[in-house]
Amino acid sequence: MKIAIYGYGNLGKGVELAVRQAPDMEPVGVFTRRAPETVHTLTGLPVYAADRVLDFKGIIDVLIICGGSATDLPVMTPALAAHFNVVDSFDTHANIPDHFAAVNAAAEKSGHTALISAGWDPGLFSLARVYASAVLPDGKDYTFWGRGVSQGHSDAIRRIRGVKDARQYTVPVEAAAEAVRSGECPELTTRQKHTRECFVVAEEGADLARIEREIVTMPKYFADYDTTVHFITEEELKRDHAGLPHGGFVIRTGRTGLEGEHTHTVEYSLRLDSNPEFTGSALTAFARGVMKNHLRGRTGCLTAFDVAPADLSPLSPDELRAHLL
Amino acid sequence: MKIAIYGYGNLGKGVELAVRQAPDMEPVGVFTRRAPETVHTLTGLPVYAADRVLDFKGIIDVLIICGGSATDLPVMTPALAAHFNVVDSFDTHANIPDHFAAVNAAAEKSGHTALISAGWDPGLFSLARVYASAVLPDGKDYTFWGRGVSQGHSDAIRRIRGVKDARQYTVPVEAAAEAVRSGECPELTTRQKHTRECFVVAEEGADLARIEREIVTMPKYFADYDTTVHFITEEELKRDHAGLPHGGFVIRTGRTGLEGEHTHTVEYSLRLDSNPEFTGSALTAFARGVMKNHLRGRTGCLTAFDVAPADLSPLSPDELRAHLL
Repeated sequence: MKIAIYGYGNLGKGVELAVRQAPDMEPVGVFTRRAPETVHTLTGLPVYAADRVLDFKGIIDVLIICGGSATDLPVMTPALAAHFNVVDSFDTHANIPDHFAAVNAAAEKSGHTALISAGWDPGLFSLARVYASAVLPDGKDYTFWGRGVSQGHSDAIRRIRGVKDARQYTVPVEAAAEAVRSGECPELTTRQKHTRECFVVAEEGADLARIEREIVTMPKYFADYDTTVHFITEEELKRDHAGLPHGGFVIRTGRTGLEGEHTHTVEYSLRLDSNPEFTGSALTAFARGVMKNHLRGRTGCLTAFDVAPADLSPLSPDELRAHLL
Repeated sequence: MKIAIYGYGNLGKGVELAVRQAPDMEPVGVFTRRAPETVHTLTGLPVYAADRVLDFKGIIDVLIICGGSATDLPVMTPALAAHFNVVDSFDTHANIPDHFAAVNAAAEKSGHTALISAGWDPGLFSLARVYASAVLPDGKDYTFWGRGVSQGHSDAIRRIRGVKDARQYTVPVEAAAEAVRSGECPELTTRQKHTRECFVVAEEGADLARIEREIVTMPKYFADYDTTVHFITEEELKRDHAGLPHGGFVIRTGRTGLEGEHTHTVEYSLRLDSNPEFTGSALTAFARGVMKNHLRGRTGCLTAFDVAPADLSPLSPDELRAHLL
C-alpha cells in the first residue's frame, strides 16, 4: 500500500521512519506547507507542496496527517477525508466526539475510510482501557503519564519573559501508582497523581525568582501541580534534555467473586525513548488497518476501537494464530 | 443476550459470576455431564444434563464452553458449534491451528459464530503481542507467567506415589524480566525465565527424598527448571494455598530511528487473585463479541484478533469515544 505523509515535523519524521520498517508499505512522499525546496527528509523521500496533494488522488492509498490537534487537524482531517483515506493522531480528548462527527461526515460522503486519534493516548492506552473495562466491569481505571517531555508545557514556559528555552517533564507519583496497583481504588487529585519538573534556560540578567513564580502559579498548566524549577545553562539543556522521551501506564483494578472478594490488576505501560517516533509507528500500523477496512468496503470514520487487531499486522491470519495467539 | 455455560468446574463458576456483572446478559443455565441434581450453582442458576443441550437451540444466544483443552474442547467445541454460537478457552498453543480449522468448518457449515482461545493466554496476552508487534515490527517479545498456581503441574505432582496433595507455583525470574525491560533483547533459556515452587503434602511415612527427586527430575514438567520442594501439612496447604492466583506479563522491546537508536518498551501485565474468575470474565466479554458479530452475519471461527475491541464492551460507540478514547 502507498503511504504519504502530510506535515513534516517531529511526528511526520517518525512516520517516515516507521513506513521504512513496514514490509507491505511504499512511501509516496511528504507534503508540507513550507517551501518544499527548504525541507530535506531523513530518508530522501520526495517533498511536495501541501496544496498539490489533490494531484495525488488515486496514487496515495492512505494519507497520514501529522498536524497539531489545536488548530491543524480539526480543519485538515475532514478536508483531506473528502479525497483520501486518512489517519490522524487527534489528541484533544474532550473534542473527540466533534472531530469524529466532522471526519465521519466527510469520509462517508466521499466513500473514504478515516481513523482518528491513533497514537498512544488516545490510541494504545484507549485500547487498554476498553479491554480491561470489558473484562472487569466492576472496577476503576487510572491513567498516569510520564516520565516524559510535555511539548505543550515546555512551550508554555518558553512564552514567559526572560526564558530562552525550557523542557518540562511530567512525572507520575510512584506512591499514587502503588496505591492504585494494590486495588484500594483511591480517589486521587490532580496534584496527587503527577508532579512537574522544569528545566529552564534564562536570558542573561533575567529575574529568576519572577520566572519561577510565573511558572508554578500558571493556571491549568502548573498551578494544580507540585512543580519544581531548575535553572540550567543552554549547554546543559542540549546535553541532558535533547530527547523527547515519554510513556506512562494505564491500570485497571476490578473485583470478581460472589462477594467481590477477588481483586485483579491489569496494567499496560509504555517506556518510550522517542515519543514522536513511537506515535508515528502507531499511526503507521493504524494506516494498515484503514486500508484493510477500506478494501472491505467499510467507509466513514473509525477509531482504534473499531478495527480488529489482526488488521494492524502485516502477518496473515494463519501466521498470527500460529505464532502470536 | 442469553448466555449458557457448558461445563461447571472452576471456570464455569467464573463465567457464572461474570455474567452476573454484565448489564446486557441473561443467564440461561448450566449444562453438566454429572447428574444435574448433584450440582449446586453459586447463584442458583438452573442445572441441566449436558445431553439435553440441543433442546435449548433457539433459546441460547451464546454457549460458553468450560472444558479442558487436553481432551474436552477438541471434541466439544466443533460439536457444539454445529448448533450454537460458542466461545472456548482452548489453550494448547501448538494445536490452535488444528482446533481453529475444526471449529471453523463446523461453524461455517451451521451458520454459527465461534471464538476460540479467549482467556488471558491465549487471549489478552495474545492481543498485547499483536498490538505491540504491529507498532514495533523491529523488536522481540517475551511472555512471563506467574507468580501463580499451575493446575497441570500441581496435578503432575499429585500423581506421584506417596503424595496426598500439592500446589505448584510458576514464578518469573525477576532478573530476566529486568534484562528484557532494559531493551537488551537477551536470549533466555527456559530455566532462566521461570522457577517452580512446589508445596507438597506427603502421606504418612512416605519417602520424602524420593518424592522430591521424582518431582525435580520429571521430564517436561520440572526437569528444565530450578524447582524447590516444600513439604507442608494438609492444614498449611488449606490455610496458605487455597486460592488460585495467577498472572504474568508480556514485554516487547523494539527499536525505531534512522539507525535504530531509540528503544521502546511495551509491557502488559496481569495480577489475578483468581485465575478461573478472571478467565471466566474474559470468556464472557468475548461472548458479547461473538453475538455482535453473529448479528452482523459474520459466521465461522474467530479469535481475539478478529474482533474489534468495541464489540467486547457493553457501552455504545458514542460512549466509548466520549469516555474511554
